[in-house]
Amino acid sequence: MSKNVIYAQSGGVTAVINASACGVIETARAHPGRIGKIYAGQNGILGILREKLIDTSLESDTDIARLKFTPGGAFGSCRYKLKKAEENPTEYKRIIDVFQAHNIGYFFYNGGGDSQDTTWKIANIAKSMNYPLVAIGIPKTVDNDLPVTDSSPGFGSVAKYVATSIREASYDIASMAETSTRVFVLEVMGRHAGWITASCALAKEYADDAPHLLLLPERPFNEASFLDKVKITVARQGYCVVAVSEGVRAENGNFLSETGMRDAFGHAQLGGVAPFIANLVQTRLSLKVHWAVADYLQRSARHIASLTDVEQAYAVGKAAVKYALEGENTIMPIIHRLSDKPYKWEISKVQLSEIANVEKHLPEDFINKDGYGITEACHNYLLPLIQGESPVPMKNGLPDFVRLKNRLIEPQLPPYAV
Amino acid sequence: MSKNVIYAQSGGVTAVINASACGVIETARAHPGRIGKIYAGQNGILGILREKLIDTSLESDTDIARLKFTPGGAFGSCRYKLKKAEENPTEYKRIIDVFQAHNIGYFFYNGGGDSQDTTWKIANIAKSMNYPLVAIGIPKTVDNDLPVTDSSPGFGSVAKYVATSIREASYDIASMAETSTRVFVLEVMGRHAGWITASCALAKEYADDAPHLLLLPERPFNEASFLDKVKITVARQGYCVVAVSEGVRAENGNFLSETGMRDAFGHAQLGGVAPFIANLVQTRLSLKVHWAVADYLQRSARHIASLTDVEQAYAVGKAAVKYALEGENTIMPIIHRLSDKPYKWEISKVQLSEIANVEKHLPEDFINKDGYGITEACHNYLLPLIQGESPVPMKNGLPDFVRLKNRLIEPQLPPYAV
Repeated sequence: MSKNVIYAQSGGVTAVINASACGVIETARAHPGRIGKIYAGQNGILGILREKLIDTSLESDTDIARLKFTPGGAFGSCRYKLKKAEENPTEYKRIIDVFQAHNIGYFFYNGGGDSQDTTWKIANIAKSMNYPLVAIGIPKTVDNDLPVTDSSPGFGSVAKYVATSIREASYDIASMAETSTRVFVLEVMGRHAGWITASCALAKEYADDAPHLLLLPERPFNEASFLDKVKITVARQGYCVVAVSEGVRAENGNFLSETGMRDAFGHAQLGGVAPFIANLVQTRLSLKVHWAVADYLQRSARHIASLTDVEQAYAVGKAAVKYALEGENTIMPIIHRLSDKPYKWEISKVQLSEIANVEKHLPEDFINKDGYGITEACHNYLLPLIQGESPVPMKNGLPDFVRLKNRLIEPQLPPYAV
Repeated sequence: MSKNVIYAQSGGVTAVINASACGVIETARAHPGRIGKIYAGQNGILGILREKLIDTSLESDTDIARLKFTPGGAFGSCRYKLKKAEENPTEYKRIIDVFQAHNIGYFFYNGGGDSQDTTWKIANIAKSMNYPLVAIGIPKTVDNDLPVTDSSPGFGSVAKYVATSIREASYDIASMAETSTRVFVLEVMGRHAGWITASCALAKEYADDAPHLLLLPERPFNEASFLDKVKITVARQGYCVVAVSEGVRAENGNFLSETGMRDAFGHAQLGGVAPFIANLVQTRLSLKVHWAVADYLQRSARHIASLTDVEQAYAVGKAAVKYALEGENTIMPIIHRLSDKPYKWEISKVQLSEIANVEKHLPEDFINKDGYGITEACHNYLLPLIQGESPVPMKNGLPDFVRLKNRLIEPQLPPYAV
């Protein structure tokens, strides 16, 4: 007898999370004998708690295929962490009630480490309540900080975006430096792990190329040493390009972005380590500085996505359904690297218990001696992940993204406030 | 008898100024009977004053063709304004001396309004000194604020970049708004004119689409009205996307970016109207805000350049040489629009005296009634400028830009300090 599916998206979205959705839905549609309806949670787990389930059967095959080219979370995502089962048993009971009401046999949760903690908790509660459920995680995070998997879908596209952007901006700065901007600072994401910042270094073709300095969250910020490096670089190259992680901390452990920037009313300024660094360079070294903060632009830049990343995002979605049909449970498909040159990978799997709430930082041997750059090992790891183009269909000069109907099904249960 | 050429780049560079350089060099190379050597000034007019002239004949046809795909200024640019002839006659005499020493008959200066003031001054001084010179301007500016020309090469590509980026980020925000960011602020360039900010509105497909609010430099910032608009938009749409020009001013005429953001040491913060707006929204409306500052990323984003813009940049370079050979002088080729739908354009020309130091702002009938959006007339004007893709050759997953040899010729004159 066929069972129904719920797929949901969780946590910060990416340029390719919808490619995973596409992989799940296309694969599930190909098995009508074993899989019935394919629902999507509206805004992740919240849609399940509220019984706000999207009927994806109303979306055409064409529109589902277009998900591969559409950034953001097509069904809505959320930041919502389930409490422990003993702290909020009602919440868990509600999830199982919703599964039961809609004959759900398969739950696919697409998210990072926090989200896979949710998948795992739900799997456990289903087991303890004797509800037959296949719960499978699907990896996603621009931060690339999921353990076990060689890389995380979403990351390769951000890496390609930041490396492209910093290379382009560096051509600009190089040509103007003598009479204009000497130092350029690009702030990128990755609050705890320096993967995205490290990827900026892929823009270098030769040793003296920009970016000249990386400020990684794995290294505490040393003002004197940093300013010295900037000074030396400007003296030698005429300009200096810096990539800084939003999560860089001072030696006392505070985020640099929280080191006291205030507006005229005394309000603490929101985020922004780039303006902090820029200010420092300008006031201490009297050099003209420009800065950019890529913020959401980097994680939604589908137009410059990495084909490798798109293919891997699709593959983990597809594999999640395949594993489910093969009888696997409480696992997550992962990317397993077979070789760097040529780059070869395959899909493998990991137990959810091994990945929930674990963060993978840049390993020590990926950071160079002075702490402001990456090693060859890091370069060899990163380079394959940005390979290949995946051009977006264009309409009227702009990317033509799909908007799904996202029609909700009739609820069967009383409302539940969350 | 053939005369030599000096081409030079001036002011802020763009994603397509090198396409103009390519147009000049390819066209000049096609007329060996009338044009001898083609030199480029190293860092604009500074290279002429210093007699630092690049011999472009050492660059292969292939590399010159690759300029079409390379952002920044391939020969270096500068921010340097000539004084009036009576204030610094030595400087003008030096320029003519350099022209004379290298048998220069043609001077092509590629820049915006300030730069064309330089072209014009040089033309006048040559005339007054009886030095036979053809001085022709080539338009360039991301700000689109040059008068007479329908649009400025460089602008269409920024317009395409900002509209693409804000559409992509909006898909991200829309999917996360319920439990995460409610308001997103993107800061774009255009200190005096709102053309780039207005272009963000091209991302809208339907009336309620993002971006919901534009903050144009043509309108003083009204805090109460703006916050009200944000509140209403969030209530209706669930989120609000704001595009803000770096040049927005408070009602007292001060730039918002100068309204007193200070770091812990009391230093005024550099630029950044986006963090100012973000702070305002968060403190007054208690809504979660994210912000991005595109800065140089927008004007160097060759990877998402508009084909129309690339073609026009090339065309004005080519036309500059054609006009010169036809006996024109002290003019600048411009884009003349023949129709909106279908978009048709041709190259025309304008006297340098008509464009030097004039700025073109958004006309009143391009700004909608409440001041936070654009009219249909503006949309019809902007849309053709972002049409068409011009993909960059890629290598190792990143744009493959050309680096010229930029070999300097032997100086003939004593050094000149500037």
